[in-house]
Amino acid sequence: MHWTLFLTYLAACGAASATGAMIKPGDWYRSLIKPSWTPPSWVFPVVWTILYLMMAVAGMRLAQIPGSEQALALWSLQIALNTLWTPIYFGLHRIKAAMAVMVCLWLAVAAATWTFFGVDFIAGMLFLPYLVWVTIAGALNFSTMRLNPQMA
Amino acid sequence: MHWTLFLTYLAACGAASATGAMIKPGDWYRSLIKPSWTPPSWVFPVVWTILYLMMAVAGMRLAQIPGSEQALALWSLQIALNTLWTPIYFGLHRIKAAMAVMVCLWLAVAAATWTFFGVDFIAGMLFLPYLVWVTIAGALNFSTMRLNPQMA
Repeated sequence: MHWTLFLTYLAACGAASATGAMIKPGDWYRSLIKPSWTPPSWVFPVVWTILYLMMAVAGMRLAQIPGSEQALALWSLQIALNTLWTPIYFGLHRIKAAMAVMVCLWLAVAAATWTFFGVDFIAGMLFLPYLVWVTIAGALNFSTMRLNPQMA
Repeated sequence: MHWTLFLTYLAACGAASATGAMIKPGDWYRSLIKPSWTPPSWVFPVVWTILYLMMAVAGMRLAQIPGSEQALALWSLQIALNTLWTPIYFGLHRIKAAMAVMVCLWLAVAAATWTFFGVDFIAGMLFLPYLVWVTIAGALNFSTMRLNPQMA
């Protein structure tokens, strides 16, 4: 365990999670027509907390492994896109623009997971649940976009 | 020039800059009492574009240099905090919370610049103008916070 690296990557995740802590779904989200399979609200912070911890461990591991240049660049890309999504969706209520960000985030996480597996199997495994969750979040974003066509 | 790395880091900067492109200052910012030395509005996108290009070059350089683990972790941290600030300030209009983010961003950029100089002189130099600009932005955030005490 390399604590300085772990805590730096965890702090980056903390910045991303601050969007969710400060920009609440609120009345707007409650008023949206949502698909029947939408997870209950308490699931989101729980899942994200676990995923952020796994991301930080993956970043810490990769940083210590030679040949992980591209992997670490993709780690940076995914955390920036992750930080961006919440303000666009829950802040601006721009579901379509958020969908575009979500597609970029999905591609970044998929590329990251793929690249991680080439460098460190455990780092790849640590990102797989994140890829699954972003797929679910993307399906949810897409579904709310289709169910609420009056929204921007 | 390692184009894949450069473009990945530039894409991360693109995610950060998207907040500024989508969340406009608007009437709220115009209504704020601002210090006399506030730069004109056109200065901000110009300066940020240049800084984002320099950040991407710094990331690309560091990724190729052994011993830059901590430097790259700090690169990730600063881009997440950079992406976070705009939604808090211009999105939520929470000047005090944005000031807290700005302090974190300043510390992250200062730590990054310091760490970069220990690994790659050019990467350190590429981050120095960023540190100067975040200092100015921080002073501006602090000043608007003091001049508009009625704001959250």
